[in-house]
Amino acid sequence: MNIIDLNCDIGEDYGAYRLLTEQEERMLMQHVSSVNIACGFHAGDPKTMRRTVRLALEHDVAIGAHPGLADLHGFGRRELQVSAEDVYELVLYQLGALMAVAKAEGGIVRHVKPHGALYNMAARNEHLAEAIVKAVYKVDDQLILYGLADSQLIRAAKQRGLAYASEVFADRRYEQDGSLTPRTHHAASITDVNEATAQVLQIITTGKVTTRTGQFLPLQANTICIHGDNGAAVQFARLLSQQLKEAGWVIRGKGVRL
Amino acid sequence: MNIIDLNCDIGEDYGAYRLLTEQEERMLMQHVSSVNIACGFHAGDPKTMRRTVRLALEHDVAIGAHPGLADLHGFGRRELQVSAEDVYELVLYQLGALMAVAKAEGGIVRHVKPHGALYNMAARNEHLAEAIVKAVYKVDDQLILYGLADSQLIRAAKQRGLAYASEVFADRRYEQDGSLTPRTHHAASITDVNEATAQVLQIITTGKVTTRTGQFLPLQANTICIHGDNGAAVQFARLLSQQLKEAGWVIRGKGVRL
Amino acid sequence: MNIIDLNCDIGEDYGAYRLLTEQEERMLMQHVSSVNIACGFHAGDPKTMRRTVRLALEHDVAIGAHPGLADLHGFGRRELQVSAEDVYELVLYQLGALMAVAKAEGGIVRHVKPHGALYNMAARNEHLAEAIVKAVYKVDDQLILYGLADSQLIRAAKQRGLAYASEVFADRRYEQDGSLTPRTHHAASITDVNEATAQVLQIITTGKVTTRTGQFLPLQANTICIHGDNGAAVQFARLLSQQLKEAGWVIRGKGVRL
Amino acid sequence: MNIIDLNCDIGEDYGAYRLLTEQEERMLMQHVSSVNIACGFHAGDPKTMRRTVRLALEHDVAIGAHPGLADLHGFGRRELQVSAEDVYELVLYQLGALMAVAKAEGGIVRHVKPHGALYNMAARNEHLAEAIVKAVYKVDDQLILYGLADSQLIRAAKQRGLAYASEVFADRRYEQDGSLTPRTHHAASITDVNEATAQVLQIITTGKVTTRTGQFLPLQANTICIHGDNGAAVQFARLLSQQLKEAGWVIRGKGVRL
Repeated sequence: MNIIDLNCDIGEDYGAYRLLTEQEERMLMQHVSSVNIACGFHAGDPKTMRRTVRLALEHDVAIGAHPGLADLHGFGRRELQVSAEDVYELVLYQLGALMAVAKAEGGIVRHVKPHGALYNMAARNEHLAEAIVKAVYKVDDQLILYGLADSQLIRAAKQRGLAYASEVFADRRYEQDGSLTPRTHHAASITDVNEATAQVLQIITTGKVTTRTGQFLPLQANTICIHGDNGAAVQFARLLSQQLKEAGWVIRGKGVRL
Repeated sequence: MNIIDLNCDIGEDYGAYRLLTEQEERMLMQHVSSVNIACGFHAGDPKTMRRTVRLALEHDVAIGAHPGLADLHGFGRRELQVSAEDVYELVLYQLGALMAVAKAEGGIVRHVKPHGALYNMAARNEHLAEAIVKAVYKVDDQLILYGLADSQLIRAAKQRGLAYASEVFADRRYEQDGSLTPRTHHAASITDVNEATAQVLQIITTGKVTTRTGQFLPLQANTICIHGDNGAAVQFARLLSQQLKEAGWVIRGKGVRL
Repeated sequence: MNIIDLNCDIGEDYGAYRLLTEQEERMLMQHVSSVNIACGFHAGDPKTMRRTVRLALEHDVAIGAHPGLADLHGFGRRELQVSAEDVYELVLYQLGALMAVAKAEGGIVRHVKPHGALYNMAARNEHLAEAIVKAVYKVDDQLILYGLADSQLIRAAKQRGLAYASEVFADRRYEQDGSLTPRTHHAASITDVNEATAQVLQIITTGKVTTRTGQFLPLQANTICIHGDNGAAVQFARLLSQQLKEAGWVIRGKGVRL
Repeated sequence: MNIIDLNCDIGEDYGAYRLLTEQEERMLMQHVSSVNIACGFHAGDPKTMRRTVRLALEHDVAIGAHPGLADLHGFGRRELQVSAEDVYELVLYQLGALMAVAKAEGGIVRHVKPHGALYNMAARNEHLAEAIVKAVYKVDDQLILYGLADSQLIRAAKQRGLAYASEVFADRRYEQDGSLTPRTHHAASITDVNEATAQVLQIITTGKVTTRTGQFLPLQANTICIHGDNGAAVQFARLLSQQLKEAGWVIRGKGVRL
């Protein structure tokens, strides 16, 4: 059976600020198998975390922690000078916070995916990658690390013996070196859902992706990231998930533990 | 053997801001049996939490979570309109954060003591008290709740079957109704350490305290709170602990589980 | 000529979080004569303030500062223990910040309206009201204070000789003592725009309002507050402004200086 | 008459957190001619700003704004991805905030010195430098910009016709390219006050400094920066100021307008 995990970021509200309505969140939950829940540093707050955990349990979707840099104003998307120690500590903190919320609601955190600038910095910096992996491992060595395929994050998880899921992006284009085309580039995003589905199917079927410049790049995928930060993303998720199912794939998070 | 727990708040630094030098922290740790570590909302941050957990482990002092209102600017001392749900969620979050930091350092959180305005509000409001007790219980039903003696916090813990420690204050004066004399009153604080020791000995020996207005008030004590937020407090801790020992008491946190 | 000022709160975005789209903001600006711009404490940030000032200038709408309590997570809606000194200082700070942003964009701040819990607390507490009035007066004695009609805010402005605008609410119901029906009451809000218009016309034509319990309350109005914090509010503003115009009123902010 | 300006950063408290006692602040104010007051983003808050403005007025010391990146946790010392627009806006905001506080207390802001990472980034990045200069100029074209001697900040001020003060450091060592020796280098700081005084006298007398590697670097100085963030710094300020006076210099901020 062909199984693939579809994950999205969620729970990114803060106080009176909401990115999705509850109806949109529920729709999103129907099409993904894993969610990455913001933990209060780049977005999210205790109330949002609890509400999101409950929604995930209701929809039988795997719960993941989505720790980010302490930069609410920049939504964790701005690179910031942080040391490996800083990163180790902020992952411990945020992961623990979500674990307690999940436990109180009868759930369990299954994976950790760093957010935004933290994800990108750790993808290329081995010290930051190792700090994240170490934090996750020390808190619970049964957790799964989600990281950019072929990045330092995956390398660090392998080295420490932590389960991982190599992540690819449905709606982002790739450079020849395996990095994502920077958002500043006009061709960074794939906005057409058919094109995104084609890219995903190419990756999970052939283990390769066609880069922005037209070459083939080998790319392993255990999980597909889709975005969930606005209403349009919900439609995107629905269509992508539907097309993957029509192509014979089962969307499920259970298969990624390695 | 006469055993009494001496606890103090600690780990209240934030970024570049420090309340105590590391040397003062180490001195303080030598004279108390339990510490309440700030969890990042009213004070503290992941780095401070980790450093403080290590110090506590090094000095064999019991580690407690010290969750507060999300009010760094007011140091968690200002009452704020929060619902029981809000309080439930913020305790889950902060407690979980410290548990993960403690676990990564090889330690374990043993107790929870609400901080500042949260402590005071929950002492008199049964809904807030129950929310705190429920959060602690759901995360780990072996934890001990520290709360003001004879307050709603203690009542809520008893009701749910959560272990608790009735707390009294060495350096604060009591009103006839069991509340602390408000800080706005000139006689709110006991600044002389001999007088503070006398009050503590009176409470733990006779089960009574002489109130501000000279009457006797029955008061149960499992733990004595001393302050740790400035250099003078360190001296106070040293002298109080010494005088209690000279009076034949053993300062130890193990005895408070009820 | 019958002139009335229509004001709404705006500029309440923060970082990646938006309450209105730019299109909605532009629509709103077409129907009001004054806007109250969040100043970064309860909502807003320097970028949002600048963008909103530019929109106001473009639409020839009077710019006002909308200082709030330093409580982004609670959107400034939660009462908090603040002293008159605290309030004096936070109004100075936020007002100055907006004045500089406005000046750099070629505009000028014309009025100040406290936000949320600060507005409500100052409406009934004379010390807080005086602190706000004093801060405004000291920074620029030509500014106009917007405050709840018949409240301590208006009284304090009169006493110091600061221009003021007595504010009434289109979509909120009144109690017999002149206060707004608390939001916790089921009849607190008027959701039907025809009913809201009728209430506004009653107030500005007769100087009276029918309270929730059916009595007449004298009520002076220099400015009408409408809400601008969601898309539905934009429609509300359009309809209310249209109906007021049809009833022969000119919507303009210039008339409120007293 | 030989006149030199001595400036220090101050007003960097936040809520319950203090870096200096009021006594230390008063001592510091006696030995400098200009102070740079934190504006609430990297440090400081409305209450601290007001208190510090009053102290400066009392000691007849020139008041300057010290805007920083919005990073309280990192004390504004961590570089962060900000655009020129972002920087323009955050300087407007913070400068305006201090101007209003100063005006209410009967004072006036005379200069602006960017703080920490913002200062360093703008020293080498012309776009950020121009954004800062433009913000200052638009708010008040009579203000003086304090910036690292020979940096992009000074160049941008010259280009726009904004008065400036070239700043040198008493207690930091210089590299051959005019930059400060990075703090990560063991020889970055000059801790001996006699050595610091010698460096200052060399610069202001000869227009040259001996770099870390022993070469001469031409260096113009209108103002000397000393640190004020701990008790030891106060002693340093006292000794440096005393030795400069003994060498025939008058410490005064009036001379720096160019």
